[in-house]
Amino acid sequence: MHLLIDGYCENKELLEDEEHLRQVLAEYPGRISMTRISEPYVIRYDDCEPEEWGISGFVFLAESHIAIHTFVEQSYVNVDVFSCKDFDTDVAAEDLRKRFKMTKSRVSLAERGWSPPGARSENPSPFKYHGA
Amino acid sequence: MHLLIDGYCENKELLEDEEHLRQVLAEYPGRISMTRISEPYVIRYDDCEPEEWGISGFVFLAESHIAIHTFVEQSYVNVDVFSCKDFDTDVAAEDLRKRFKMTKSRVSLAERGWSPPGARSENPSPFKYHGA
Repeated sequence: MHLLIDGYCENKELLEDEEHLRQVLAEYPGRISMTRISEPYVIRYDDCEPEEWGISGFVFLAESHIAIHTFVEQSYVNVDVFSCKDFDTDVAAEDLRKRFKMTKSRVSLAERGWSPPGARSENPSPFKYHGA
Repeated sequence: MHLLIDGYCENKELLEDEEHLRQVLAEYPGRISMTRISEPYVIRYDDCEPEEWGISGFVFLAESHIAIHTFVEQSYVNVDVFSCKDFDTDVAAEDLRKRFKMTKSRVSLAERGWSPPGARSENPSPFKYHGA
């Protein structure tokens, strides 16, 4: 399952806080019973148009990955939690919205554990849309 | 735009080739006019059930990231190309299917550049499904 969250956060200090991002990546996998298999990687990107700068972070999980990108001047943050195993996506979405103090968000799910046609009788569309 | 590819590759040597994965992550962003802002990170994961081992790789882009996970015994590979800017997703999907010699694949697109309700008149569902 792949949880995608696109949200707005009015707290710009949080969106530029590399240590906060590193802590989320370090601690959050364990909260949803996932196994972190790397250190968190965090990078600041400001070699760009002034409105596009932000910080990005990534961590490898045994189950796949978590990636987070912020766009500070746009008050915008993207979060991906991709796991080849099921997890409680409602809990994760609510937790991550809180950790980034999102005031508005769109939460979507992509089913990634795919079997090709013929491997099983139904192959539904991979996406569920949870609205704005 | 976020391109998601889930595919099958019958060449297991390719799916366990860390150097190939590193090369794709190093070179591919430039092919689609994206800017790589980190080294490729590549990790092998085999502390798991025998059928679940594989390699994973990630690279930060100015535009967001590329992430790839293989599951060697399942002949399975997941690719994410996430960019806050538009890119030719048809070209990228075809290229990446070829680079991983996918025999079957599902390609999906998620629109990530989101505006909350009220910011513009329409807020369509983020996903387009390109079939199997």
